[in-house]
Amino acid sequence: MAAKIISGNEVGEKIREELKEEINSLKGKGVTPGLATVLVGDDPASQVYVRNKGRACEKLGIYSEQHNLPRDTEETKLLELIAGLNEDPKIHGILVQLPLPKHIDESKVLYAIDPSKDVDGFHPTNVGLFFTEKNFEDMIGKQLFLPCTPHGCIELLQRSGVELSGKDAVILGRSNIVGKPVALLLMANNATVTICHSRTKDLDKICQKADVLVAAIGKPKFVKADMVKEGVVVIDVGINRTEEGLVGDVDFEAVKEKASMITPVPGGVGPMTITMLLANTVKSAKRTEKMMA
Amino acid sequence: MAAKIISGNEVGEKIREELKEEINSLKGKGVTPGLATVLVGDDPASQVYVRNKGRACEKLGIYSEQHNLPRDTEETKLLELIAGLNEDPKIHGILVQLPLPKHIDESKVLYAIDPSKDVDGFHPTNVGLFFTEKNFEDMIGKQLFLPCTPHGCIELLQRSGVELSGKDAVILGRSNIVGKPVALLLMANNATVTICHSRTKDLDKICQKADVLVAAIGKPKFVKADMVKEGVVVIDVGINRTEEGLVGDVDFEAVKEKASMITPVPGGVGPMTITMLLANTVKSAKRTEKMMA
Repeated sequence: MAAKIISGNEVGEKIREELKEEINSLKGKGVTPGLATVLVGDDPASQVYVRNKGRACEKLGIYSEQHNLPRDTEETKLLELIAGLNEDPKIHGILVQLPLPKHIDESKVLYAIDPSKDVDGFHPTNVGLFFTEKNFEDMIGKQLFLPCTPHGCIELLQRSGVELSGKDAVILGRSNIVGKPVALLLMANNATVTICHSRTKDLDKICQKADVLVAAIGKPKFVKADMVKEGVVVIDVGINRTEEGLVGDVDFEAVKEKASMITPVPGGVGPMTITMLLANTVKSAKRTEKMMA
Repeated sequence: MAAKIISGNEVGEKIREELKEEINSLKGKGVTPGLATVLVGDDPASQVYVRNKGRACEKLGIYSEQHNLPRDTEETKLLELIAGLNEDPKIHGILVQLPLPKHIDESKVLYAIDPSKDVDGFHPTNVGLFFTEKNFEDMIGKQLFLPCTPHGCIELLQRSGVELSGKDAVILGRSNIVGKPVALLLMANNATVTICHSRTKDLDKICQKADVLVAAIGKPKFVKADMVKEGVVVIDVGINRTEEGLVGDVDFEAVKEKASMITPVPGGVGPMTITMLLANTVKSAKRTEKMMA
């Protein structure tokens, strides 16, 4: 039996509709959520990402401004811009598009963003607060910016009715932007979590035991049908450009015959990342509104 | 065949000897490492901990001062004390003994400690930097305060010659002070990590596959011999007060017959916590020395 396809387009659309209501309610109270994006250089992929973020804001009625700086911008200039955005009351979220040119210290720049406007959730203080929070409901309830892609994965699972408590979740990849934070989020949802990576032995055996499998390693079609068990739920975070177009880390056509649910690439996790960024921006604006009230 | 017993007393002693040399070398350059401990209230166990830390400092030639405040101390008073210690050049490490009385906001107090003096590694910024670091050598090399008990576990493993890369490590417990940070440290040492907890199903089966088992759940003698495989390496972080005295989370007498190495309780992980606190204090003082040079 073929798997149910989890559509990130559909789930994302649903969340954006919910956000729209919140935004309208905020505007009624005199607060318009605002997002500033900062792009240094002219990397075409980054330009597309930033433009898409701007458009997504526009659609929902979020104010957005885009700061495009030349590739040779000095680090101090960039830090000055961020300092200004930190102080700007119109701006509730600041996103610096990565990667930055090599002459700029990325961690220094991320550190300079006011944690209360860090809608990417990359500031060490926010990472630390996220790490320390034990319970998923608290993560959502508190003024905490969850990292966008991992949070998007959890939304896909929850809104597809996947019960995570007590499940064996296996994560392929231990990156800071996906593998490690997804592990924390699954654990906060009471899953038993195993994190695999390039040094893992018997990877097939470990994957075969997974109730939920999250692939985030950047290797096209790495996960084959014989690596998963019947009924597994598969979240494919990979986006690999190949000759046959964009493909995920999972051999979708084969694995979907065994899985109970699976995300496609494109149209799975991808659309969720921007959506959760917008959600964080609205969350930030709501706090401003509370402070004004 | 009975397991090799990993003695935290011996490993700790060895590390403290190494620290003593570093301290003498620092003193030769005019820097005496200094640790301030802060205790609020008169909990007898906390008093013992703080006293032991003071004594350990004295033995190594670390300057220490103990601030004992009455139980009804106001939060603002405590924050003032910390602000003073943050500014005090004699002090390289500040340790606030937990738990604090209920009228004081623990997270606010930990947040108030200057991250560069946070030798417990509990400040969110330090937690975030630790989370983000990928490689164990970098964690050690950089100015990063690793949390003391988890770091002590890794030192016990490494100094006992346990190769972690590619090994299946299973952690029982997902606490902020042991389970989660131990997971990060084992992962940074290239182990494949599974984190189990109260909601985990088939716990026995998961434990039976472990090459390295870390128990940190606070349940006396919870891990039985039939839950582990022949040759497992066991780190027992539990310290449970029972009628038969202090016991760990592992049924030591039975499990030691199957394990290849095992830590006892007491005398295993316990002595390592203070040792790694002293190591962090010396690490902090070394930075001061570099700044002066």
